[in-house]
Amino acid sequence: MASAVHDVVGIGNAIVDVIAHADEAFLGRRGLVKGTTRLIDAIQADRLYAEMGPGVEMSGGSVANTMAGLASLGARAAYIGQIRDDQLGQVFRHDITSAGVTYRMRAASSGPSTARCLILVTPDAQRTMNTYLGACVELGPEDLDHALIESAKVLYLEGYLFDPPRAKAALRTAAEIAHGAGRKVSLSLSDPFCVERHRADFRKLIADHVDILFANEIEIGSLYETSDFQAATRAAARDCEIAVLTRSAKGSIVVSGSARHEVPPAPVAQVVDTTGAGDLYASGFLYGVTRGRPLEVCGRLGSLCAAEIISHIGARPERPLKELAAAAGLA
Amino acid sequence: MASAVHDVVGIGNAIVDVIAHADEAFLGRRGLVKGTTRLIDAIQADRLYAEMGPGVEMSGGSVANTMAGLASLGARAAYIGQIRDDQLGQVFRHDITSAGVTYRMRAASSGPSTARCLILVTPDAQRTMNTYLGACVELGPEDLDHALIESAKVLYLEGYLFDPPRAKAALRTAAEIAHGAGRKVSLSLSDPFCVERHRADFRKLIADHVDILFANEIEIGSLYETSDFQAATRAAARDCEIAVLTRSAKGSIVVSGSARHEVPPAPVAQVVDTTGAGDLYASGFLYGVTRGRPLEVCGRLGSLCAAEIISHIGARPERPLKELAAAAGLA
Repeated sequence: MASAVHDVVGIGNAIVDVIAHADEAFLGRRGLVKGTTRLIDAIQADRLYAEMGPGVEMSGGSVANTMAGLASLGARAAYIGQIRDDQLGQVFRHDITSAGVTYRMRAASSGPSTARCLILVTPDAQRTMNTYLGACVELGPEDLDHALIESAKVLYLEGYLFDPPRAKAALRTAAEIAHGAGRKVSLSLSDPFCVERHRADFRKLIADHVDILFANEIEIGSLYETSDFQAATRAAARDCEIAVLTRSAKGSIVVSGSARHEVPPAPVAQVVDTTGAGDLYASGFLYGVTRGRPLEVCGRLGSLCAAEIISHIGARPERPLKELAAAAGLA
Repeated sequence: MASAVHDVVGIGNAIVDVIAHADEAFLGRRGLVKGTTRLIDAIQADRLYAEMGPGVEMSGGSVANTMAGLASLGARAAYIGQIRDDQLGQVFRHDITSAGVTYRMRAASSGPSTARCLILVTPDAQRTMNTYLGACVELGPEDLDHALIESAKVLYLEGYLFDPPRAKAALRTAAEIAHGAGRKVSLSLSDPFCVERHRADFRKLIADHVDILFANEIEIGSLYETSDFQAATRAAARDCEIAVLTRSAKGSIVVSGSARHEVPPAPVAQVVDTTGAGDLYASGFLYGVTRGRPLEVCGRLGSLCAAEIISHIGARPERPLKELAAAAGLA
């Protein structure tokens, strides 16, 4: 196995978030399920955008957020995700590059525009996401940078990649490249509805290829079709080397073989916007993994990074996570 | 005089802000003067953007911010400013429209892109602004919506409009339209360097047409070429019906004829980003003027709105200003 140039390489949908405040009635009138993600087409995106309030644009994308968090922790992170050569694509490239993440993708010169996620933040700080996939539908197996994937200790994939039509094959190819180079493969389930749409594919990818699985309580229940969290946890532990189950304010559980670690949440003065909580938990956890830290410490690093991201609007860290980790004695 | 459909119509440079954190050394290496605005061309904009950290995109523009603040107070506000038909232009239109401001401008279908202001926020919460005027250079007298200007009790102009080449004539034309309809004309000096670049034009416009003048201490000193604040204040009071002089943490002074009101600042728990402080002060003040409130109350409304805007990132209000004004007994 060659020595690793990167700690983690992530593959995901490259998205610019448009974040606006909304009340429960706004969600209710449109049948939106709070806390989840739905896919919308260009026409729906234009309509919802016209109806929603003034927004803030920030680079997003689940795995891209995780990579920005890893870079903020001081890890060497790289990202693969498809943008278009438009203004929002330029914003995405600028932000991930200036965050310190290796990003070599060529922007598409035709086809749909750079993906947008219209995020409605309700007064309880929950986010409800409406994703227009745009240029992300262009990503296929042939767009993967083999050398980049081989260069990282861990490959990190988002479940959302099952949605664009050609990315499903890319997920499997990427996992094969990583395992071929002796690397670890990790996956986030992303969203319960996404699991619902692609359950069989998720199960097969996880059984064949996933070493480290990230999921929240609802997602893991959807994956194994059970409302029994303990049963779902056992199933995940059978399928993967490490299963990481996040439970919002209740903290997280890390299971590996017969070992089981309960990790408390990190304190937060005020929860402002939960967008990115799972993404940044993964940053902290994977940082710990690449540094060879015990699983319980990996979990505490995850909690720490999640606490930072939910204390402000947006899913990219505002404070250097490396300093926060050092202050918490976890660096 | 026809009854007014709008309270205030504003004309300004339509700009999308790109806000990023930077340290003093970053400004120092580039010779940037903290707290001021400089004009940059497209090449400089691309270079500075490449060098600066991850950003947040939010609609801005000095007068546009003021109009959004007026709408948040419950006033009927309208805006004139030139955008391009690109993604950032769509963002600008969406945000000002969804804030409740009347905006009827047609986007330019060719020429430079929608204007951007690269804003660097230092740890002391000061903002240093780098403006690429882009599509704003297209605005000329023939682009003015005469009926819209005639429809508002007050016309509000930004000094920044002296920078794009054809807008200088538009300023004068707009003032003539407003006065022809029996309306008031107000102007913000915007920036000391902008005053420096166009001092004679500022003086002439103010002497001929400005009823209500907004300036901070440095700007008014630059306009009248004096470091004596009292002398500058007297000069402003001679030229205009009302002169409003803001002094950051020291509050503001409102002078009209022989009357002089000292207005304290409103309390702020934590100053996060001073971007928009002057713009939102003008929202509150003009709101009071259109409601026929005493000048001292107008000043307190200004302080209240400025306090909201400096308590968070960005120059558009996050909380309904109408509710804040009611809570402060000023609605």
